[in-house]
Amino acid sequence: MRTRDAILTAAAEIFDEFGYSGASISKIMNRANVTQGGMYFHFKSKRELAHAVLTSQQEFVAHPSEGFGLQGLVDLTFFTAHQLVSNVLFRASVRLAVEQGEFGPRDDTAYQEWVEQLYVHLCAAREQGELLAEVDEREFANVLVGAYTGTQVFSNIASGYADLPERLVSMWRYFLPAIATPQGRARVRLPADVARIAA
Amino acid sequence: MRTRDAILTAAAEIFDEFGYSGASISKIMNRANVTQGGMYFHFKSKRELAHAVLTSQQEFVAHPSEGFGLQGLVDLTFFTAHQLVSNVLFRASVRLAVEQGEFGPRDDTAYQEWVEQLYVHLCAAREQGELLAEVDEREFANVLVGAYTGTQVFSNIASGYADLPERLVSMWRYFLPAIATPQGRARVRLPADVARIAA
Repeated sequence: MRTRDAILTAAAEIFDEFGYSGASISKIMNRANVTQGGMYFHFKSKRELAHAVLTSQQEFVAHPSEGFGLQGLVDLTFFTAHQLVSNVLFRASVRLAVEQGEFGPRDDTAYQEWVEQLYVHLCAAREQGELLAEVDEREFANVLVGAYTGTQVFSNIASGYADLPERLVSMWRYFLPAIATPQGRARVRLPADVARIAA
Repeated sequence: MRTRDAILTAAAEIFDEFGYSGASISKIMNRANVTQGGMYFHFKSKRELAHAVLTSQQEFVAHPSEGFGLQGLVDLTFFTAHQLVSNVLFRASVRLAVEQGEFGPRDDTAYQEWVEQLYVHLCAAREQGELLAEVDEREFANVLVGAYTGTQVFSNIASGYADLPERLVSMWRYFLPAIATPQGRARVRLPADVARIAA
């Protein structure tokens, strides 16, 4: 693994465990097993490390779905649930995005990028005749980012993410009737088996 | 103001500004203008202070609505939006609840209390014939706590809560069709004027 990647992974682990305030650059150096010189060649401060972790999520969350439109949107929410459990960089970036007030001026870039991703799926859903006339794609993308953000926070505190797939099935149960046409709803599949995932 | 209340308010201000990790008992003592003796008479640790702030939200968020059932539920979400702006104890308790991993073992008590409050309104809505047959009151109370939690996090980062009323109107636009009977929807009123509230 390249040094920069090793540092980034170590930073994610430390931010995930301790939050921004509880993390320190020396903890991250120890975890990554790099010298001060190695660290400062790549990153000058804890803030810079947090920013790198926060922006890394785009690289890690690629479109996972063959489906597009409504199915792609639904799949993306369940894919990211698994990423939260299995991918420490993604998990840390979400924690930093939620607790972002901690490290400086408010910046909703990460949220807006999520809105954009969901918006693309919603526009495809519209083209495929899956959305009801009264749905505003951009408005609902914003609603969904908010709802998803809190659902994962609640799930993390309640169960360390183990119940997140169940909570997402519930969330979709109360959004789909408001957004999807009958043919859209008939087509979309929620995971039939939402076995609790190991934390 | 009694010393204990003064300390609690100061603690809320400090937790609201700095988060749990960034707060310290000496910052809180200075803010409250109490001696070490005064502090330790009431609170022994930062953790104990955080716990007191976190559990104080029940005292502060009383039922604000004359309405009950669906209208009571909707009113509660807008009332708490105003509380987030105007009541530092409530705001700090929400921040601590969201960032709770910071100070010790995960504890979803605050979330479960919200679920209970919403559940009571949903049961009343059921009795008044406002809920669709397929709605599970407890399941939707959980969905709504998750959705609300994230909506306020997003709004806080995007606008310091200024756009929270607008975001709540949007959220309800996509939940009401999935939960409310036609007569329930006809009866319920969202705030007509969601002027941005000052942060």
